[in-house]
Amino acid sequence: MNRKRLRDLGIVIGALPTGRWNAITDVPGVRVGQTTIITDEPRIARTGVTVIVPRDGDYWADHCFAGYHRFNGNGEMTGLMWVDEAGILTTPIGITNTHQVGIVRDVIVEYGRTQPNALRWILPVVAETYDGVLNDIDAFFLQREHVWAALETARSGPVDEGNVGGGTGMRCHQFKGGIGTSSRLAPVGDKTYTVGVLVQANYGSMEYLHIDRVPVGRGLMARRAAERQAAQGSIIIIIATDAPLLPIQCRRLAQRATVGLAHVGGYGDNSSGDLFFAFATGNHVPRDASELVAAQMVPHDWMNNLFHAVAEAVEESILNALTAAETMRGFRGEVEALPLDETLEIMRRHGRLK
Amino acid sequence: MNRKRLRDLGIVIGALPTGRWNAITDVPGVRVGQTTIITDEPRIARTGVTVIVPRDGDYWADHCFAGYHRFNGNGEMTGLMWVDEAGILTTPIGITNTHQVGIVRDVIVEYGRTQPNALRWILPVVAETYDGVLNDIDAFFLQREHVWAALETARSGPVDEGNVGGGTGMRCHQFKGGIGTSSRLAPVGDKTYTVGVLVQANYGSMEYLHIDRVPVGRGLMARRAAERQAAQGSIIIIIATDAPLLPIQCRRLAQRATVGLAHVGGYGDNSSGDLFFAFATGNHVPRDASELVAAQMVPHDWMNNLFHAVAEAVEESILNALTAAETMRGFRGEVEALPLDETLEIMRRHGRLK
Amino acid sequence: MNRKRLRDLGIVIGALPTGRWNAITDVPGVRVGQTTIITDEPRIARTGVTVIVPRDGDYWADHCFAGYHRFNGNGEMTGLMWVDEAGILTTPIGITNTHQVGIVRDVIVEYGRTQPNALRWILPVVAETYDGVLNDIDAFFLQREHVWAALETARSGPVDEGNVGGGTGMRCHQFKGGIGTSSRLAPVGDKTYTVGVLVQANYGSMEYLHIDRVPVGRGLMARRAAERQAAQGSIIIIIATDAPLLPIQCRRLAQRATVGLAHVGGYGDNSSGDLFFAFATGNHVPRDASELVAAQMVPHDWMNNLFHAVAEAVEESILNALTAAETMRGFRGEVEALPLDETLEIMRRHGRLK
Amino acid sequence: MNRKRLRDLGIVIGALPTGRWNAITDVPGVRVGQTTIITDEPRIARTGVTVIVPRDGDYWADHCFAGYHRFNGNGEMTGLMWVDEAGILTTPIGITNTHQVGIVRDVIVEYGRTQPNALRWILPVVAETYDGVLNDIDAFFLQREHVWAALETARSGPVDEGNVGGGTGMRCHQFKGGIGTSSRLAPVGDKTYTVGVLVQANYGSMEYLHIDRVPVGRGLMARRAAERQAAQGSIIIIIATDAPLLPIQCRRLAQRATVGLAHVGGYGDNSSGDLFFAFATGNHVPRDASELVAAQMVPHDWMNNLFHAVAEAVEESILNALTAAETMRGFRGEVEALPLDETLEIMRRHGRLK
Repeated sequence: MNRKRLRDLGIVIGALPTGRWNAITDVPGVRVGQTTIITDEPRIARTGVTVIVPRDGDYWADHCFAGYHRFNGNGEMTGLMWVDEAGILTTPIGITNTHQVGIVRDVIVEYGRTQPNALRWILPVVAETYDGVLNDIDAFFLQREHVWAALETARSGPVDEGNVGGGTGMRCHQFKGGIGTSSRLAPVGDKTYTVGVLVQANYGSMEYLHIDRVPVGRGLMARRAAERQAAQGSIIIIIATDAPLLPIQCRRLAQRATVGLAHVGGYGDNSSGDLFFAFATGNHVPRDASELVAAQMVPHDWMNNLFHAVAEAVEESILNALTAAETMRGFRGEVEALPLDETLEIMRRHGRLK
Repeated sequence: MNRKRLRDLGIVIGALPTGRWNAITDVPGVRVGQTTIITDEPRIARTGVTVIVPRDGDYWADHCFAGYHRFNGNGEMTGLMWVDEAGILTTPIGITNTHQVGIVRDVIVEYGRTQPNALRWILPVVAETYDGVLNDIDAFFLQREHVWAALETARSGPVDEGNVGGGTGMRCHQFKGGIGTSSRLAPVGDKTYTVGVLVQANYGSMEYLHIDRVPVGRGLMARRAAERQAAQGSIIIIIATDAPLLPIQCRRLAQRATVGLAHVGGYGDNSSGDLFFAFATGNHVPRDASELVAAQMVPHDWMNNLFHAVAEAVEESILNALTAAETMRGFRGEVEALPLDETLEIMRRHGRLK
Repeated sequence: MNRKRLRDLGIVIGALPTGRWNAITDVPGVRVGQTTIITDEPRIARTGVTVIVPRDGDYWADHCFAGYHRFNGNGEMTGLMWVDEAGILTTPIGITNTHQVGIVRDVIVEYGRTQPNALRWILPVVAETYDGVLNDIDAFFLQREHVWAALETARSGPVDEGNVGGGTGMRCHQFKGGIGTSSRLAPVGDKTYTVGVLVQANYGSMEYLHIDRVPVGRGLMARRAAERQAAQGSIIIIIATDAPLLPIQCRRLAQRATVGLAHVGGYGDNSSGDLFFAFATGNHVPRDASELVAAQMVPHDWMNNLFHAVAEAVEESILNALTAAETMRGFRGEVEALPLDETLEIMRRHGRLK
Repeated sequence: MNRKRLRDLGIVIGALPTGRWNAITDVPGVRVGQTTIITDEPRIARTGVTVIVPRDGDYWADHCFAGYHRFNGNGEMTGLMWVDEAGILTTPIGITNTHQVGIVRDVIVEYGRTQPNALRWILPVVAETYDGVLNDIDAFFLQREHVWAALETARSGPVDEGNVGGGTGMRCHQFKGGIGTSSRLAPVGDKTYTVGVLVQANYGSMEYLHIDRVPVGRGLMARRAAERQAAQGSIIIIIATDAPLLPIQCRRLAQRATVGLAHVGGYGDNSSGDLFFAFATGNHVPRDASELVAAQMVPHDWMNNLFHAVAEAVEESILNALTAAETMRGFRGEVEALPLDETLEIMRRHGRLK
């Protein structure tokens, strides 16, 4: 069966409606750029970089509020000291492989310094997961131009999923993983805000994989006599919203990604770098304010729909990474794509599909 | 149907075996004492206190390592400044209603000061959830002698669940909730450690209730035309283990309670005080050390089974609170017990029971 | 010499001007209430409670933004889970002795529940230091009416310092300590905001005492052949400002109290519960918002004068506690007041006074 | 006057004795490597990298416990997610300029992967301060070989201070700053442990500079009609000790660096990235443990001398950076070295020197 998005298979996660693209780019102004590196000679590259630009306009001088949550810390996300202290996102966000966080970080600095209104010093947010099974990670394939290209080509609209960008060589629940995205429209008071999620999914064991809480992984294991395997790897989750949140509320949003991840089958296993980042474009924090900054805040009492939107969109983003990613042969062997026919059969057997 | 424990209904959560009592008291030395206050005159009391004693012997001078996690902070757990700074638990833990944390805290101080080797100043860990629906909470029923009695009668062995102790007046997923407990035996290297959990469950909406990931809540709602209700209330989760963990590892354990809670249907909703506390008896930190303190540490790489044990035991503890608690009439009306027959029928329909 | 405030001795800390009262009450709306308990029969009481009301009007429904910092955690400050999660202060703040935090906390709940617009559940912020040297702390002298009186009598204007309220039995740098307060006017953009500080000072060794960075403590030790004594005890620091800060900025303010404390001679010693709390009245967070909450934010770039105001006012507050407190005889002996004549002589010798 | 170390000027900070070199390298096994880049053509380079190797032997597989503290977050220190989660340091530590943290981080990964027992994925700790006044920072001078050289040449013994390594182009209190180091011997129980500190000092205003609490900065300002200047820049503080501390205790140590910094004149100003990191070599955490890991812990009650050692050594390290650094002309002008004659005269006038 050709690769599809989860909803195209007839599986719907949660109760809230999606945005137009069912992608992080449904949050107005949010753009995604990806560079994919796949070569077999002289060494086997299966890697890349994914970049998320937080808003339209001069985002280098028009900052968003932001916050993060660490579910398990066996990974890297740079830039968090200033995010935690000041509650603002001042750069695009990069996601790549574990060993090349540095070059992505420095190239975002360099790129920023070509912008007219960027800060004098720049502290980018860059995260990673480990693709060393399919990618010859110690060859350090990613170069300056790859990062630059991702920054230059970031755009709104549909987002490529699966074996692309930073997700190129990733695995998830022992199947091929990578980039996935989803969104939700959340009623908040008399307004509706968009919550968009993008994940780089590279974690988990087959036995714990659930789709809409159906134990699909155990079903698939039984069929393929798959070995029980210790969970390896990590997941990076980026959450965007146009709701006017304070920094402290972005942090709350980031923490709720844990729920969506737990529903699919994440446990924050020891080797997993499960780092979640949320930013909110509904307020504008100027680089050089000449007066008090005015902000709006969703009352805490109204946050629940945003929390649920995060949980739902995280769950669906991970599953979209799985249903989109194709079987890949690479550095240390082959990783099978999630078998959609079998998956649907298991879902049907559990009464979840007609 | 008479109230039962979840396993007596034929429902098993997870893969790891339980300890002898399937209770937090399976961790050697851990004891539980509970005082239940139910009166109708002159005011309607449905409240109490639950106390957890961390180990045998002179626990006032023989401290455990400990750590905590906040999933959502709309609640109280005292004593956390020293736990976070020093990583040690120096007192019994109390759980009660929201408005009487203070008296429980001060009485634990007073009790401690009667012990020969207690510290000169005492910083107890006391948490709460809100029972103001069934209990006339502003009557402040709990008195010094109730707390004292719970401390004096703490014992090992089976633990009463449901409408007892601090859990007397609690609700969970719109059904009657309260105290629940469970345990797991986790293989770690060539040893097996016990993880015990006790919850005071008082959170959640019916629509989100899942049992072993089956959407039982939605099934029950359909049958009783229950109104969709915003989640209210909180959950306190206490985790004990005899594994020799460092403070930092106790914190990791506490954080994994999020997974078990998410599996049942917790989202860390805004009004929920979801506070998790873990202590480990495998090391001994003397009050007045006369030499370097020797400690052991489970290698981080070996922690996964403990993480999964926490997730499983938390899930089952919440469900035990639900299956044990009986319908209660109180201050502002009646709260129905989880209907076991209907629940089983729904589980059966999803192919989870014979 | 009669007890005085530091400035009345001719010693000025820092560069920023003070408010009218040089007290936390210079922040408009902030009020302080104190109950002092001094009895010799049947047991020796030297204790009390100090209450800080955060603003005029219906502060139970009109919340302030707030944040905290822990310099050393050997102490208690309740209510911090919700402050850290939501960034709001929803109650008055209480400070008392270590063993009676609970009763102060519960009585604030009870008092709040008599107010028309209070929340259904109340999570007070209450902190402590240990007065067990001068006060027979295990007699638990503080009763409901003492707390109630402090709440009822809270008022603006000058604040009593030294042996009053929660500070009655406290020691500081081996001299008599207790309550101290100070304020600063900080230029921020084209406005001026007030920063007010109140401390309950009960920490430190004589040898580390500095006044305006002059090593007064070493001078005094030499004269009295005082024994070198390990630091004992704690300090609670409450910071108020009318600047419109976000929660994250209150936390930044709280952290800067460390600087003022370090200047006097605090090291965050192991036995010290050094907990700092900051709230900002410049924004209003309604209990039940019916629309998005509008807030203002001092640009981060403009925060430095507020940081320095905190450092200066903390330093002066501690010293005011020392110069105001009088020699006290109590439970386990006598604690000498800071000798003002000798102090001035040492300052003069260092060229700091004419 | 030729550049000197502070003690060679007759100024002694604090009461504890120093180690042999009065340097971080006094902690057995700790080594420092530095590469300095100074060129005028084609662009003006005043930058470099400093590397700290945590212990002898196979430190890639024999990890130290570690912890960190953020005094102000306007800066970067990578690798902290795993340090905070697991409490271990698994790599050398790098310090460089703000825009090149990335390359240092990735080269440490690359270097590590050439070691036989390194982890499969590597999460280095790399920090920075901003040298863009003296260094044409956007030229990104630092290359792979510079980092490699620093790693290869790391050695014990005396450490170069001032305009070297990562500190080459740094300013401190408006004078030339850079690398500084110091150590203390701290009695703990019946043992003596070494605490070593290394700073990259690049923060502060002249008016706040204090030496041994004498307001030297104000004296120097008066003489040179220096303009009052807003504080700019940051300080990175690395603390090493051979005491057997737990992770939670390393964090406590890191936090006490605030005291030493406050004594010199740091306020955690908004633009300052004041990040402190502590590691302890007294315990050994193997990469692949085959049994429970045995650890020792200094009783919390005994920590005070270590806290004071940190405060003293941090203060002296900053001052050593100032007394060692030489006047430098660079990208945007010249930065004067601290004038030692005038400094001594001011100290003398305050009665601190004969």
